[in-house]
Amino acid sequence: MIVVMKTGAPTDVIEELATEFEGWGLTPEKIVGTHKIVIGLVGDTASLDEARIQELSPFIEQVLRVEKPYKRASLEFHNGESTTVTVATPNGPVHFGRSHPLVVMAGPCSVENEAMIVATAKSVGASGAKLLRGGAYKPRTSPYSFQGHGESALELLEAARAASGLGIITEVMDTADIDRIAAVADILQVGARNMQNFALLKQVGQQSKPVMVKRGPSATIDEWLMAAEYVLAAGNPNVILCERGIRTFDSKYTRNTLDLSAVPVLQSLTHLPIVIDPSHGTGKSQFVPATSKAAVALNVDSLMIEVHPDPSKALSDGPQSLTFSAFSTLMDELEPVARIVGRDYA
Amino acid sequence: MIVVMKTGAPTDVIEELATEFEGWGLTPEKIVGTHKIVIGLVGDTASLDEARIQELSPFIEQVLRVEKPYKRASLEFHNGESTTVTVATPNGPVHFGRSHPLVVMAGPCSVENEAMIVATAKSVGASGAKLLRGGAYKPRTSPYSFQGHGESALELLEAARAASGLGIITEVMDTADIDRIAAVADILQVGARNMQNFALLKQVGQQSKPVMVKRGPSATIDEWLMAAEYVLAAGNPNVILCERGIRTFDSKYTRNTLDLSAVPVLQSLTHLPIVIDPSHGTGKSQFVPATSKAAVALNVDSLMIEVHPDPSKALSDGPQSLTFSAFSTLMDELEPVARIVGRDYA
Amino acid sequence: MIVVMKTGAPTDVIEELATEFEGWGLTPEKIVGTHKIVIGLVGDTASLDEARIQELSPFIEQVLRVEKPYKRASLEFHNGESTTVTVATPNGPVHFGRSHPLVVMAGPCSVENEAMIVATAKSVGASGAKLLRGGAYKPRTSPYSFQGHGESALELLEAARAASGLGIITEVMDTADIDRIAAVADILQVGARNMQNFALLKQVGQQSKPVMVKRGPSATIDEWLMAAEYVLAAGNPNVILCERGIRTFDSKYTRNTLDLSAVPVLQSLTHLPIVIDPSHGTGKSQFVPATSKAAVALNVDSLMIEVHPDPSKALSDGPQSLTFSAFSTLMDELEPVARIVGRDYA
Amino acid sequence: MIVVMKTGAPTDVIEELATEFEGWGLTPEKIVGTHKIVIGLVGDTASLDEARIQELSPFIEQVLRVEKPYKRASLEFHNGESTTVTVATPNGPVHFGRSHPLVVMAGPCSVENEAMIVATAKSVGASGAKLLRGGAYKPRTSPYSFQGHGESALELLEAARAASGLGIITEVMDTADIDRIAAVADILQVGARNMQNFALLKQVGQQSKPVMVKRGPSATIDEWLMAAEYVLAAGNPNVILCERGIRTFDSKYTRNTLDLSAVPVLQSLTHLPIVIDPSHGTGKSQFVPATSKAAVALNVDSLMIEVHPDPSKALSDGPQSLTFSAFSTLMDELEPVARIVGRDYA
Repeated sequence: MIVVMKTGAPTDVIEELATEFEGWGLTPEKIVGTHKIVIGLVGDTASLDEARIQELSPFIEQVLRVEKPYKRASLEFHNGESTTVTVATPNGPVHFGRSHPLVVMAGPCSVENEAMIVATAKSVGASGAKLLRGGAYKPRTSPYSFQGHGESALELLEAARAASGLGIITEVMDTADIDRIAAVADILQVGARNMQNFALLKQVGQQSKPVMVKRGPSATIDEWLMAAEYVLAAGNPNVILCERGIRTFDSKYTRNTLDLSAVPVLQSLTHLPIVIDPSHGTGKSQFVPATSKAAVALNVDSLMIEVHPDPSKALSDGPQSLTFSAFSTLMDELEPVARIVGRDYA
Repeated sequence: MIVVMKTGAPTDVIEELATEFEGWGLTPEKIVGTHKIVIGLVGDTASLDEARIQELSPFIEQVLRVEKPYKRASLEFHNGESTTVTVATPNGPVHFGRSHPLVVMAGPCSVENEAMIVATAKSVGASGAKLLRGGAYKPRTSPYSFQGHGESALELLEAARAASGLGIITEVMDTADIDRIAAVADILQVGARNMQNFALLKQVGQQSKPVMVKRGPSATIDEWLMAAEYVLAAGNPNVILCERGIRTFDSKYTRNTLDLSAVPVLQSLTHLPIVIDPSHGTGKSQFVPATSKAAVALNVDSLMIEVHPDPSKALSDGPQSLTFSAFSTLMDELEPVARIVGRDYA
Repeated sequence: MIVVMKTGAPTDVIEELATEFEGWGLTPEKIVGTHKIVIGLVGDTASLDEARIQELSPFIEQVLRVEKPYKRASLEFHNGESTTVTVATPNGPVHFGRSHPLVVMAGPCSVENEAMIVATAKSVGASGAKLLRGGAYKPRTSPYSFQGHGESALELLEAARAASGLGIITEVMDTADIDRIAAVADILQVGARNMQNFALLKQVGQQSKPVMVKRGPSATIDEWLMAAEYVLAAGNPNVILCERGIRTFDSKYTRNTLDLSAVPVLQSLTHLPIVIDPSHGTGKSQFVPATSKAAVALNVDSLMIEVHPDPSKALSDGPQSLTFSAFSTLMDELEPVARIVGRDYA
Repeated sequence: MIVVMKTGAPTDVIEELATEFEGWGLTPEKIVGTHKIVIGLVGDTASLDEARIQELSPFIEQVLRVEKPYKRASLEFHNGESTTVTVATPNGPVHFGRSHPLVVMAGPCSVENEAMIVATAKSVGASGAKLLRGGAYKPRTSPYSFQGHGESALELLEAARAASGLGIITEVMDTADIDRIAAVADILQVGARNMQNFALLKQVGQQSKPVMVKRGPSATIDEWLMAAEYVLAAGNPNVILCERGIRTFDSKYTRNTLDLSAVPVLQSLTHLPIVIDPSHGTGKSQFVPATSKAAVALNVDSLMIEVHPDPSKALSDGPQSLTFSAFSTLMDELEPVARIVGRDYA
């Protein structure tokens, strides 16, 4: 942490600050220049709050973090090695991580009825998917849109799990629902709109199922990693990160801007497994195959893809869903790309 | 709602769509052009989902909403008249609305201890504030930052309320805390990061205290009004909107970009009262007085301003907090501006 | 400038860097911490390029600028005092600056014909405007939109200048047109889309007419001040800054997001006069009066407002233009606000 | 084009509008609903300006473009077939387009001296690049940064062209320089900051060398295609589009956000060849290989990559430049990805 003093900051203020920092267990080191004085803080600064320091004196111009604000989520914390998150599914354990095959999760935006969810599970499983996605509780911009079937949809997911052997990933929106959902799901999903719902993050961190944290549409990489840090700090080491499109100035042709270049950035910063969701990221099924291939070429650990038996009749997100046969074709097309980057399918 | 068909859409697809829309209780009207066919949907389209329509056929190019997606929050719904939200405080009712005096809410970012919160309440009240703000539960980007004193802080707010006669506004972050907070607060605040926490919006809509919905840092005006619509649709008519800065490409000199021009836009769209929070909006106390005056010149209904007995020692958000005397000076400076736009203080 | 070394940077690399910096005439000062080494650069760092330093070694983690990248545009460079830019007009000198009355510039988006431009000049002059705006060369997104009447419009501006006594401000888009335009205009405008047309900035810096630099729709405050710095560095001290709306994620209800909060930020950073253009900033004439009042409450030095004899027939930007009578009313309404902040009209 | 009238628009206004549109050679068709009246405009609406229509009456609520604003740049204009842009180089013609091998352009940010540019040309040529990039005139944010060697650098590019047989692509920043640059360059580059320098676009459209239009950092897809339309409309059919990163809310770890998902979007909208520039897009050489592979997996037509003999000593953009050997390795790694999508190297 580097504390830049305003030009003309009095010497006694600087001394007082130095004493304060020593009281915090840090070693303050001064650089005295011709115009400016800067204080370098050496020690365990990872948990310090820049704003907290800024408040110490009106003579502080800027507080610059040199270290990363996250700790447990950082690659250094894990000695530079990637984490494997293992998910128990009826068909056996599925591993997410840099040294494992590509894991594909697929399924509809929302669980509509038993027939459709079971059929989808069987079909995507046959094509190579290892987990079934499907929303029971749905975050919708309008209170007048379909909100998901809630609790009853959880039973249908359970039926699909039994019928197909696939693991289940589904979204949790309210701390009050965690236990109910964790009883069925193999991975809990924290959705993009709840990425900074800190009450929720803390509580999914206190249960044992793996958690996938979707990036908020306007979350910086740091904020996203800090959201993961909330879960990790609460005691749950099994966190997966999912990029699903960010909000930019242009949303005419795509629902969001899929931030594919976040993949190599994350690979340089964190040990946590990384998922790309091209369906939400682009919002249009026609762009899903190309962006999926690009994600695999970036050596992502997993893809999450929306698949629906009949996208034109989907209760939500139909325009971004693939049909069974389009998904099956895509899986075939991804295989040679995965092989080039040294992966196989899970 | 206007449905634009792709060039070359077959006649029978268009007929099928028309039949489908009639089944939904709408009157479809076709415009047949030389290149394009467009279907206008007449009837109650406010609760329709564009995406739901798009899903009906791959021959649909675009679905354009002509009507606004929100209903209860719209000015038309209220016959063009503004709403007054009345808040009961020990000192008497406080009215938020276009035809009422400017209401100023003030206080610290977080409740730190009894002495500071009581002193702040008395001081801001003496300067003309009508409600005391103060966080018991704090949303913080880092799990290692001060998270608020929680339940015990609610008691301190209660003490400050009794000592000063001011009403209390404080944030609720978790559905599990609503009852506890509503027992103390006169207004419940839904914070920017929870603006699309739909579980929370639904439940604050089912209780009786007024609700202030802060705009998410990247929420469009429509998304923000839809968040208000969740509360209204759940049965609570007392909703107040608060702009607190949006996220843009530049955050070097201000924490957020305070979207002051949202005020006249909202005044043209909604009947709900509007608050500006220049403290979070700019993140720097030095910019609070000027932007407060601008907000009053825009004829905003209320201001929310951070005040702390000693900003340099604040546990959070010190750099954006005014001292007691700076707040008092600002209140004096706002008075003539308020008078020009035909307002007085509450 | 602060150079943060990567953990484990070898000592000899750090010594080499130190020697390099000394060769540049700087004094490098090291802070050696337990994990990190940081080099503070003392001396004339204003003209240094962060990227140039970063290139020096792969062991450099980050280069942090502590000083501002601009020099001549900074408030410090001017000893903390604001600049007055004086513009010679037929009616006498007009002064832009913090210690002068508010200057209003008004007129149509584009010069359409002699009658309209002369009538507009006379009308806005009668209402209190001191300069006439009017485009001869128009930047338009589409090559099929009206591009301005070009050279012939300059003659019409000259006629309007003679008839009304107002000064003229008009846009220059090409270095090849500078002389021709400077022969007629009293202020040259560099438009938002050309804010980083460096060839243009250099050349308007080499002629003697004052220059108004509009902020690019996605320009940071620093980039904008650097654009002004190009003009200043080329020798022209008479630079005026104009905020005209930035691009954000929401453009449904306004053409741009008028960044009113940039006014106090600029006042704290630069000595140059500041203009707000609420017409382009909001894109809708209905929002111009309120945002103009807010700008004046922020103590801006000048306003630029679009006025057209018949907005519904304007060849460009009609929806954001005021009628003569709306402009006259607005001028009356601005007066008491200007007086509150200690200004009068020019 | 669809014109949505405000609720309560008088019948005679609507009749007048209809007459006006007929006078423009369009066929207006009304849809009369219970609340709203909408006018569909049938005919040649591609060159119409929405704002121009909006201006016709205050009773117009919204003007919605159903057709695309660009014409010559659209896939439909070219009967759904992609364009091949052929560039004459000493080593023979190079073809950019969907049905041709991947073209790689490489070289330094700026031309520094003869030895470095000739060595780079030979090295990247040996690795498979077909064109040499190198800046003679450099757009720099600061007037104090290195601005390129200008005219003398053009001679060095000529020497490198002769020595290596590679074609030359270099940036033009000022209309006054076009002839001089076109005498040397095989492709003229319009840089990101000049994407809406309409004077420049018109003039590069009036000469015969192919033009590469880089996307402005905050340009929408439509604005970018309209910039290409300026060149096409001026008579030059050889336009290439280059994505080089957009500006978003996060620039901590990458200089820009490389918008890889723009590739499939453009492939669905335009017939023009598409280039990705991962060097500017990410700003860090470590992210160039992965994002290059992703671009090739998206079936892009060309890549533009910065290469420098000694990145740590580059006068500009060193941190994003590859060494000769890193470039050579990357070319080898791209080959199998290109083959999967059915391409080979040019």
